[in-house]
Amino acid sequence: MAKTADRYFKTDPWKIIEDGFDPAYSEVSESVFSLGNEYMGVRGYFEEGYTGASMTGSYFNGIYEQDIHKKSGYKGITNVTEFMVNSVNWLYTRICFEGETLDLAASCISSFQRTLDLRNGVLTRSLIWKTQSGKEIAVLFERFLSMQNPYIGCQKIRLQPIGFDGEIRIHAGLDASGQHKAYEKNFWRNAACETGRDFVSLMAQTVSTGQRVYSGCRFSGDILREEDEIVSAKTVEKVYILPLRNRQNTEINRIALNYVCKEPTEEAVRVFTGKCLAAEQASGQLHYETIKEDSTAWWTNVWEHSDITIEGDVLNQQGIRFCIFQMFQTYHGAVAGDNIGAKGLTGEAYNGNAFWDTETYCLPFFIFNDMQAAKSLLIFRYVTLPEAMERAKELDCDGAFYPIATISGKECCNLWQHASLQLQASTAVAYGIWLYEKYTGDRDFMRECGMPMLIEISRMLATRGSYTADGTRYGYYGVMGPDEFQMMVNHDCYTNYMARFTLQFTIDQLSRFTAEEPEHICDLRRQWNVSEREESNWSQMIRQMYIPYDERTGLFEQQEGFFSLPHIDVDSIPIEEFPLYHHWTYDRIYRNDMIKQPDVLMLMLLFNGSFTQEELRANYEYYEPRCIHESSLSPSVHSILANQLHKTEEAYDFFKFATRMDLDNYNRNTCEGLHTTSIAAAWMNIVYGFGGMRSDGEMLCFQPSVPKEWRSYSFRIVYHGDVIIVTVNSETATFVKKSVSEYCADTKLHVMIYGRETVLAEEPVTVDIPGEWKA
Amino acid sequence: MAKTADRYFKTDPWKIIEDGFDPAYSEVSESVFSLGNEYMGVRGYFEEGYTGASMTGSYFNGIYEQDIHKKSGYKGITNVTEFMVNSVNWLYTRICFEGETLDLAASCISSFQRTLDLRNGVLTRSLIWKTQSGKEIAVLFERFLSMQNPYIGCQKIRLQPIGFDGEIRIHAGLDASGQHKAYEKNFWRNAACETGRDFVSLMAQTVSTGQRVYSGCRFSGDILREEDEIVSAKTVEKVYILPLRNRQNTEINRIALNYVCKEPTEEAVRVFTGKCLAAEQASGQLHYETIKEDSTAWWTNVWEHSDITIEGDVLNQQGIRFCIFQMFQTYHGAVAGDNIGAKGLTGEAYNGNAFWDTETYCLPFFIFNDMQAAKSLLIFRYVTLPEAMERAKELDCDGAFYPIATISGKECCNLWQHASLQLQASTAVAYGIWLYEKYTGDRDFMRECGMPMLIEISRMLATRGSYTADGTRYGYYGVMGPDEFQMMVNHDCYTNYMARFTLQFTIDQLSRFTAEEPEHICDLRRQWNVSEREESNWSQMIRQMYIPYDERTGLFEQQEGFFSLPHIDVDSIPIEEFPLYHHWTYDRIYRNDMIKQPDVLMLMLLFNGSFTQEELRANYEYYEPRCIHESSLSPSVHSILANQLHKTEEAYDFFKFATRMDLDNYNRNTCEGLHTTSIAAAWMNIVYGFGGMRSDGEMLCFQPSVPKEWRSYSFRIVYHGDVIIVTVNSETATFVKKSVSEYCADTKLHVMIYGRETVLAEEPVTVDIPGEWKA
Repeated sequence: MAKTADRYFKTDPWKIIEDGFDPAYSEVSESVFSLGNEYMGVRGYFEEGYTGASMTGSYFNGIYEQDIHKKSGYKGITNVTEFMVNSVNWLYTRICFEGETLDLAASCISSFQRTLDLRNGVLTRSLIWKTQSGKEIAVLFERFLSMQNPYIGCQKIRLQPIGFDGEIRIHAGLDASGQHKAYEKNFWRNAACETGRDFVSLMAQTVSTGQRVYSGCRFSGDILREEDEIVSAKTVEKVYILPLRNRQNTEINRIALNYVCKEPTEEAVRVFTGKCLAAEQASGQLHYETIKEDSTAWWTNVWEHSDITIEGDVLNQQGIRFCIFQMFQTYHGAVAGDNIGAKGLTGEAYNGNAFWDTETYCLPFFIFNDMQAAKSLLIFRYVTLPEAMERAKELDCDGAFYPIATISGKECCNLWQHASLQLQASTAVAYGIWLYEKYTGDRDFMRECGMPMLIEISRMLATRGSYTADGTRYGYYGVMGPDEFQMMVNHDCYTNYMARFTLQFTIDQLSRFTAEEPEHICDLRRQWNVSEREESNWSQMIRQMYIPYDERTGLFEQQEGFFSLPHIDVDSIPIEEFPLYHHWTYDRIYRNDMIKQPDVLMLMLLFNGSFTQEELRANYEYYEPRCIHESSLSPSVHSILANQLHKTEEAYDFFKFATRMDLDNYNRNTCEGLHTTSIAAAWMNIVYGFGGMRSDGEMLCFQPSVPKEWRSYSFRIVYHGDVIIVTVNSETATFVKKSVSEYCADTKLHVMIYGRETVLAEEPVTVDIPGEWKA
Repeated sequence: MAKTADRYFKTDPWKIIEDGFDPAYSEVSESVFSLGNEYMGVRGYFEEGYTGASMTGSYFNGIYEQDIHKKSGYKGITNVTEFMVNSVNWLYTRICFEGETLDLAASCISSFQRTLDLRNGVLTRSLIWKTQSGKEIAVLFERFLSMQNPYIGCQKIRLQPIGFDGEIRIHAGLDASGQHKAYEKNFWRNAACETGRDFVSLMAQTVSTGQRVYSGCRFSGDILREEDEIVSAKTVEKVYILPLRNRQNTEINRIALNYVCKEPTEEAVRVFTGKCLAAEQASGQLHYETIKEDSTAWWTNVWEHSDITIEGDVLNQQGIRFCIFQMFQTYHGAVAGDNIGAKGLTGEAYNGNAFWDTETYCLPFFIFNDMQAAKSLLIFRYVTLPEAMERAKELDCDGAFYPIATISGKECCNLWQHASLQLQASTAVAYGIWLYEKYTGDRDFMRECGMPMLIEISRMLATRGSYTADGTRYGYYGVMGPDEFQMMVNHDCYTNYMARFTLQFTIDQLSRFTAEEPEHICDLRRQWNVSEREESNWSQMIRQMYIPYDERTGLFEQQEGFFSLPHIDVDSIPIEEFPLYHHWTYDRIYRNDMIKQPDVLMLMLLFNGSFTQEELRANYEYYEPRCIHESSLSPSVHSILANQLHKTEEAYDFFKFATRMDLDNYNRNTCEGLHTTSIAAAWMNIVYGFGGMRSDGEMLCFQPSVPKEWRSYSFRIVYHGDVIIVTVNSETATFVKKSVSEYCADTKLHVMIYGRETVLAEEPVTVDIPGEWKA
């Protein structure tokens, strides 16, 4: 846990500010200033062109290419890797004055400031360009993505000459000729460029997946004249001349319409083409400022029901708002069938693949902030159930085996030791369904989507596991649990426990449908194709599922035999040997009792109420010292549990860099993209950690406390259609229920506060913080 | 074990005969009719060219190319695969008559017969070619490799026109333009072709390893005139006209001189070039028939001390002689630094890589047939000790970690689960040193080569293992034993046992040198760089080495936890699911108590005398039913042990296809090359199996019995410089000691026969077969 901050941005409660430009941070800034609206994402690159280090990334959710590896001689090992592909640069601009082109790597500039306003998602950049002839031009760039209409991105460039009159040339267009950074290749073909009056468009297809992207840009503003239009294979641009009048602003605005067609079917392409055409025709009616206002309103609403405030810690205040902002940028259920890549839409690392992080870390965020988004995430798994079933077949299992890494729903991890041994993506889906149903009671979803998924996952769990030779214990052999430092183990506690939970939840739901819809149950069972015999097999497995546990110590054994593994003192490992994957021979990592991230403790967070405080303490004190937290998701889980154990300093230590992981570039790889799923964990770290919220019981629970570093803090969650605002200082915690118009609200909300059932209404409820919860 | 014979060749006690040509078997025949002399090997392809299916393989021991794979992001995973490279075709010939070229895929032929005479290693092929003009020419091809001078290969072509006179054109030359079958590429560059009077030569270099091969051919015979010489980039040929006189033989002979230079150092290349030149100059003095006589004499000597005869079973008689022949063809210690590829020099499967098979299966054969060859095999490991030490470093170990697959000494297996987890190549080297020293008392070898290897292997074993958390047990975590169906296991019985043996043997040898050479021991310890402290660490590990064993049942547990693994009835697996690697998803293989090949039982063969008959029975009866014998080496081990347990029918069942695995193409992949290391196991199957020989005790032991399918059999071994001939029938076993001139013989040999010490001398000793050993 020896991580240090590399602080570059200015601190501000609502803004991310880069004051002055340091090229050494250019790619870090590109990541941090990424904009996204789930449908698309664009890194904070300099749209006017930049010859310094840059990952000029413009991405669309679910638009990907494939890397086809040499096929393994063994069965069930995928050889196709999907990766999010860098797409059309719809901000493409060049600014030329007296034969000189603005380029922050070469031009003489001053007064550089870049600001991302978290309140409305608008990114601005201002600078003064001193040209070679000694003239000065103040330049302001503004960009934002519409949150109301996710197909729209906007750009404004405002110029002001200081002390002279003249003209300036602006190239404004579209560029699909860029290279994907990691592959150093362009993945677009069949580009078709068109130009119209103050309009350019480009349509292109991905090379092997045949997906389509359309981008059309309408330009407006103080255009003096159009000088030229330049069309080449994968680029199209207008060349405009703008007037420069001393000390007066000249503007050019762009409204970009971006559409994708993920499926290359004839029908889909027809619909897509129609949409693009219609959008193009209607684009004349769009107004830059109106779009901005609408989008700002959208963000205002977000902050109204999802803000977290921290008094006395502006660093973490900025950090947590950045996190909340990123979560909504990345996902808000705009389009069914999208998922959340480990880096969101902010970079190319992890190939844009989604992992079990989605259900495990991101889903709770959305359940308590944006239920429609939560549902959409689960719909992704429902839509890709056929791929998961195909994958199960490849793995000689029945049912559905969800991929450990994916974009399209297919398994994209070609390391068999992860893709074939890790069952937690599948059980995380079951957990997600459980949590969603618990907080929505959405029986229609359960009937149509939830049950088919649960049944197929259960079916996989019933064929992937085995009974011991003597038939007394059921469990999973040759697996890797969430802790990726123990490989090919038997009876991994997490895996067995989650499987038991999944099978039980499926059976419970079958019973519930039988009770609730007795008239349909036969039809439903037929539709789901589940027999009573199968159900009874599952019951048998549940009864005999082996959960390695030592009654004497209260310790769950992470896997069979874990307790007798050779011990390693993780603190004795020299700092320069981290990350271990780079410094230790591969197999050496797996031969001792060191763990990479929580496994037993993860279980204790997910099903917190099922374990006693004593069990939690015993297991925390056993496993935490063995954990090296090599996953960025690990510290937050430990922070939450440490808080529950009143290990407040330890909790704060783990929390310290959660909210600012990317702002302070703790892992020194923010240049590759933001740690989007860790951002979700940072939110959990406050709400579940200091806020002490627990969502796994019959009733929502809170046991808030405040770290001694803070004066007070507050967080908001959306719960049963209301917003609950929790404000905590060192003495009291106050709970307010606030109705939000668009939701149908309960009049009274029952929650548990410090173990006591409490009814929340509009009137604030203030509770003294019990002694043991004081820092 | 449901394997069936695909019998194609004629049965004969001394010959392999192909009577009539079936193109469907052409590549199987190429493998079976391979010739080799350790230095080089050449498949039985048709040298006159053949447009049908062929792997036109000509190989040199230790001449290889590299396949460079994408580097893994993980440490210690090799990305370079070495493979034996197809080299110059030094038999290149074309036979043209009246514009027609002989091609067995197209020409009209009759009376085809091909014969490999195991007595002298001469391969002949005769046929009658009916040309398109209706003329008939009898053609005889003869080839052999010199066993006296391994650089020499010879070819004779004899032609006889039937009913006409005329002339015939023969193209005779060298061709380095052939493709490697698997890679479909030619791996030669810088080819330099030269021609002289009745002489052609070609020198070329491997593309990436820069090794050199020289081939020079001298032609003689009834050459009427030289018509032309054709030189292209990688081929050189003479075009000769030979006379055809009705019913008379016309001959052309070739003596090919082949030299390789494995190291591309300046000095090595100079020596090599000198050798080639000298050989070329002296080649005029070589005579085809003299070379043939010398080589025949070499083979006569082999059969004198290594023959096995079987009365009443001509199939196995032919089979075992083919095995013995192949062993000597593949290896006889001609050149230090050679090893034995899994397919010998007969094909490209397994990349020509050598495995632990060398020490485990082949070494015993050579120890009892050709001690110089046995020593050479160990010298290979000594010479490649630096590579093994380099490999240990890559794996974060001290000392030496011998590669699981290699040509040059470097690890060539890029599957980490084998290359990083399997320790048996290293411990097999220690076992080989032990066996060699036991039967030679070669203290010089021990001092110079054995000890350095043992110490470095011990050092690896002392860093690769760990103590349990409580410090009570030492052993190996995350390993794969010889049974490759259990991966990443802890305390594999075989691995722990072999490690204990290796550490103990090393310490014993240190003590012995201290006792034997007290005046040198300080120097020696300094030279070996081994401290007493290190030795005492090893002693500690030996004492605490955990050998999983159940006192109650007498069962050794293959690995910690094996007994509680889910059970699978291997007989219930449908036959069409084999081989499992092709039909089962990769990880599924590893999740039950099924084993691929002997692991505990292997130990019980290697250290047979250390286990009681009851232990052997218990373990055999437990493990054999769990074994699917997917390794071709497995049945012989089981046959030997079944015989010891008087399970004579079972023993014979396992033996059945051992000697004829390739002749009858049991695995249907003989086309890819012979199962050379299985051939060594077939020899063990008779000598250790039915002959009941044991070589791991203080004294050589025999407990012969005869399968009821045979009238009698005899085998010969070389032991302490004499040949022991053991002849067994259903009633008696007779032992004769026969002095062999080239060895310095003991006058009396002490051996154990059925547990009783017996002195062998020239006079035969006949012993009644005890009741329990009768079939």
